[in-house]
Amino acid sequence: MKKYIAEFIGTFILVFFGTGSVIVNEQYNNALDLIGISFAFGIVIVAIIYSLGSISGAHINPAVTMTLLIGKLIDKKDALFYMIAQFSGAIIASLLLHSIFPNNLELGATNPSGSIVQTFVVELVSSFVLMLTILGVTQKETKVAAGLVIGLTVTGLILFAGPISGGSFNPARSFAPAVISGNISNLWIYLSAPLVGSISALLIWNLMSLGKNAVR
Amino acid sequence: MKKYIAEFIGTFILVFFGTGSVIVNEQYNNALDLIGISFAFGIVIVAIIYSLGSISGAHINPAVTMTLLIGKLIDKKDALFYMIAQFSGAIIASLLLHSIFPNNLELGATNPSGSIVQTFVVELVSSFVLMLTILGVTQKETKVAAGLVIGLTVTGLILFAGPISGGSFNPARSFAPAVISGNISNLWIYLSAPLVGSISALLIWNLMSLGKNAVR
Amino acid sequence: MKKYIAEFIGTFILVFFGTGSVIVNEQYNNALDLIGISFAFGIVIVAIIYSLGSISGAHINPAVTMTLLIGKLIDKKDALFYMIAQFSGAIIASLLLHSIFPNNLELGATNPSGSIVQTFVVELVSSFVLMLTILGVTQKETKVAAGLVIGLTVTGLILFAGPISGGSFNPARSFAPAVISGNISNLWIYLSAPLVGSISALLIWNLMSLGKNAVR
Amino acid sequence: MKKYIAEFIGTFILVFFGTGSVIVNEQYNNALDLIGISFAFGIVIVAIIYSLGSISGAHINPAVTMTLLIGKLIDKKDALFYMIAQFSGAIIASLLLHSIFPNNLELGATNPSGSIVQTFVVELVSSFVLMLTILGVTQKETKVAAGLVIGLTVTGLILFAGPISGGSFNPARSFAPAVISGNISNLWIYLSAPLVGSISALLIWNLMSLGKNAVR
Repeated sequence: MKKYIAEFIGTFILVFFGTGSVIVNEQYNNALDLIGISFAFGIVIVAIIYSLGSISGAHINPAVTMTLLIGKLIDKKDALFYMIAQFSGAIIASLLLHSIFPNNLELGATNPSGSIVQTFVVELVSSFVLMLTILGVTQKETKVAAGLVIGLTVTGLILFAGPISGGSFNPARSFAPAVISGNISNLWIYLSAPLVGSISALLIWNLMSLGKNAVR
Repeated sequence: MKKYIAEFIGTFILVFFGTGSVIVNEQYNNALDLIGISFAFGIVIVAIIYSLGSISGAHINPAVTMTLLIGKLIDKKDALFYMIAQFSGAIIASLLLHSIFPNNLELGATNPSGSIVQTFVVELVSSFVLMLTILGVTQKETKVAAGLVIGLTVTGLILFAGPISGGSFNPARSFAPAVISGNISNLWIYLSAPLVGSISALLIWNLMSLGKNAVR
Repeated sequence: MKKYIAEFIGTFILVFFGTGSVIVNEQYNNALDLIGISFAFGIVIVAIIYSLGSISGAHINPAVTMTLLIGKLIDKKDALFYMIAQFSGAIIASLLLHSIFPNNLELGATNPSGSIVQTFVVELVSSFVLMLTILGVTQKETKVAAGLVIGLTVTGLILFAGPISGGSFNPARSFAPAVISGNISNLWIYLSAPLVGSISALLIWNLMSLGKNAVR
Repeated sequence: MKKYIAEFIGTFILVFFGTGSVIVNEQYNNALDLIGISFAFGIVIVAIIYSLGSISGAHINPAVTMTLLIGKLIDKKDALFYMIAQFSGAIIASLLLHSIFPNNLELGATNPSGSIVQTFVVELVSSFVLMLTILGVTQKETKVAAGLVIGLTVTGLILFAGPISGGSFNPARSFAPAVISGNISNLWIYLSAPLVGSISALLIWNLMSLGKNAVR
């Protein structure tokens, strides 16, 4: 039960501050710009991993949870409740942002700026790198640095992917603002591409490391 | 006694360089911008935690000290003198800034840019995240990274909260420039919201971790 | 074999996100600027080292592999296949970028903005610093921080070298976009200067540390 | 002897990339801005500490060496040769920068933008914070993070001090470009203020930590 609360709170914090920084950037003359938004997302993930990681592993991303389920690194019941907690936390965050920024129409939703193929490829490859980093850095020797590395990785990926796809890599992060703002036409990309990318990372990881299992 | 000196010096450094960076930004054509100010605050906290943390725990924030008092993680006498040291250090810093920037009227004080409700919510939720991160990262396994994580967390929170509330999360940081510049009309928000947010984090933390106590 | 796959994937990721961030910056009105590009490169290297470092050492740079070969820290067969994997991964990345950004003519290639001597000196000295940092930080005591330090070092070096030489320090990173975009007139600088700089670092390192060998 | 070579190389790298980034910013339309310059300086220090720290301690700053001499943490002969190596390395760096940027007149020299008192206070307090951080973070428990913390601290201090004083905190870093560019009228501030600030930090540190000695 404690684990599910942690996933709920973690994903709430991610979406509140992450998509919130996109909203603040729109409301206050690009005060953050791409650099500020990418660091806001990344650093908030650093904070979440070091505050909640010891309780739930701080997945805060349904694509990560699904991938770990496929890799048998989390059991079915936990995976289900983790994902329910993640989507719920994200939705509460988008609702709170909507109530304090009632004039903002997009709520930090992600949408392709160019073609759908570009966005799909970018989200897929970025999620692949993110999941590979999670699997690598959570091994015992470097675990103390895991939060800093994973958070910074999201910052780096958003710097590249942000202008193209919005830089999601996380179905819950894209789902909540899309649903609450009522624009779900591109949502399928952000639900599917991160999953394909993350699962590919697991396959490659297992190929490269054999016997060695990811430990969270 | 040494601990109180450390809290005095730490809060002095925080307010001198933190609010000082806001002043420099105003005096020198936005040379720092939101990104620079958020990193100046965050990095100075990194420096303070690694220089003074082994002596006093480097609270440098009365909301943190009050929360640890409520959680019985610091005794009453220490908490009282910590807070006296924090407010004193902050005031000396604002006085020194006033003497070297005599034409600056606000001294880096925090004020709401929109509604009071927006600022209250943003300060409360940000302080919640900051306190949760402090409680999580100061556990034994990740303690070596605590200063980097806590400092960076403040950077990330200011990127979001800065344009809305000024990004304080710390009663001493808001108190000193408000009092020295003589504009205390919004001060109550910055004294109360961080406290409510921090104490909420402690309650949630205790709920999630039971038995496990925060160790600084 | 696993090691070669890791070098292939690592260099693919480096070139896809690194030179990709240069392309995105051109396509989207300097959305990243020098700061964003330098952090994109550096952070992607952080991610690669923590995800693949335990498998292959994450050289992802033929100048590093050549230098370690000269220092007898990698055997001849491995060095050869490492470099084949690195150049292949880089070329696949440039081809993928070309397919999703068909209108981009330079694909993030590096070219001197001033004189060839300036670029040669800057690439040489930067590669010297990068290799010296790799040799120093991968020693046992600080190995846990190696990925963060090496990645950040690349960010710092690009901040200085970027406007002058493009900031490569890596023959594979410069080779792929030059060949795929068909402009190889300056490529020799980026193949030779990093090698001279890296080997000089090894010589100086051996001079300063004697007996102590670099451990990856 | 190896230690002196390390101090020579370290200070050369610091001045080449640090003051070099100031020069590049002037030559290329403020491509780095204050943010980029502050990260270039800070990150280069991160690289130097992790590459050379195990050999010489990576002081690369005569004010640090003098302070450690006064604190009896380095012997007289070593201190003398450290400082000779530091000033020599800095001068060679400025000469090399002069040869590749022959049209740049200031070579990244530091000068007060406002009053001398402002610059003196800012350099003194910044050097105080830097030295206090060095003394605190190099204790055993956090030594692995020392390079990241000290480098980032310099970044944070430059964000505040840069627009006012240029952000030196290091006599060798200010000496070399001033002497090579032939403008030494303000040099005395940058030779004296860092020394006063650093020594003050040692006194406060000894007061707070008693018995505990700084270990590098």
